[in-house]
Amino acid sequence: MSETEVRRRPGGRSARVRAAVLDATVELLRAHGLEGLKVGDVAERAGVHETSIYRRWRNRENLLIDALLAASEVLRVPDTGRVRDDLIAYATDLAAFLATPTGHALEHTLAIAGDDPVMRQARDRYWAYRSERSQQMITRAVARGELPDTVDPRLVIEMLVSPVHFRVLLTREEIEDGMPARVVDALLAGISPVR
Amino acid sequence: MSETEVRRRPGGRSARVRAAVLDATVELLRAHGLEGLKVGDVAERAGVHETSIYRRWRNRENLLIDALLAASEVLRVPDTGRVRDDLIAYATDLAAFLATPTGHALEHTLAIAGDDPVMRQARDRYWAYRSERSQQMITRAVARGELPDTVDPRLVIEMLVSPVHFRVLLTREEIEDGMPARVVDALLAGISPVR
Repeated sequence: MSETEVRRRPGGRSARVRAAVLDATVELLRAHGLEGLKVGDVAERAGVHETSIYRRWRNRENLLIDALLAASEVLRVPDTGRVRDDLIAYATDLAAFLATPTGHALEHTLAIAGDDPVMRQARDRYWAYRSERSQQMITRAVARGELPDTVDPRLVIEMLVSPVHFRVLLTREEIEDGMPARVVDALLAGISPVR
Repeated sequence: MSETEVRRRPGGRSARVRAAVLDATVELLRAHGLEGLKVGDVAERAGVHETSIYRRWRNRENLLIDALLAASEVLRVPDTGRVRDDLIAYATDLAAFLATPTGHALEHTLAIAGDDPVMRQARDRYWAYRSERSQQMITRAVARGELPDTVDPRLVIEMLVSPVHFRVLLTREEIEDGMPARVVDALLAGISPVR
């Protein structure tokens, strides 16, 4: 992409450069995976100078996480007014996102990423942001009186999304249409008989 | 390992060869990962002929899955007589196993493994076996009248183990002591107030 193409994007120059760099990062991740991701290649593809990237992101890991966060922004947090519908919609959207080439690449990038301090900090930031956003579904349900205020929003989100990630990364089993609803119903009502 | 060392193992010669080959496979997986796993190296390390391995396992994928299954046999399915205790013990043991070098290597091997038909068949066999064994905790609870017979044992096991895998592979968050119990309690009783 040339600097001219970068300039065609809407928004200020800074926003245009940022979007071009993040797009290029995701495209290169999809094509070559995390190990092959070089800041120089990102700069070339985005049509910017490598020094501009380092000035803004400081290191490769910060750039990577910013790109992952930007790409996962397609995951909206639903607000239907009913917690069951919100949770089913969110798990369904997550499964659809992880089935896209971008979602698939991001998931595998996060699974194979190393554990050095810089990478760990970037990854923690990614998951904290994603978890906090989706916890809104639970805190809103508590505010509406649909869920008791003793509920742990973080645990609920973890139990909602992890069966989806488990299938995508490990068993590779298809996420059939009814699966998110079955997970949500088990989570809301529990599997024990009411005593 | 020499043929002499192989012979020292208890059991028949066939069982000794099998154990030596599976051990060597797991050791090489730990050291070099899935991509670097060569049947010739396994044969050399186990002190057997490469042709013996192909005669018994037919291909690399079958050998790999047999080794994964053998290594994960340390995961016992508890039978305490109470479903809550069984599920907490199982999730706790799973977390401990995945924290060992062997468990960690197996988990990452499964996450990065490709999707060709032979690998897929081997992987399906691995997860089906693991799931069927652990479903015994649920079917026994149904037989005791602790859980209703409408419960889906497969879904329950998926919801029990996936938060553990999610932390190990993706968030890398520590599995603190109380976490398995919190997952199990949410799963048994549900997060909604009793209506």
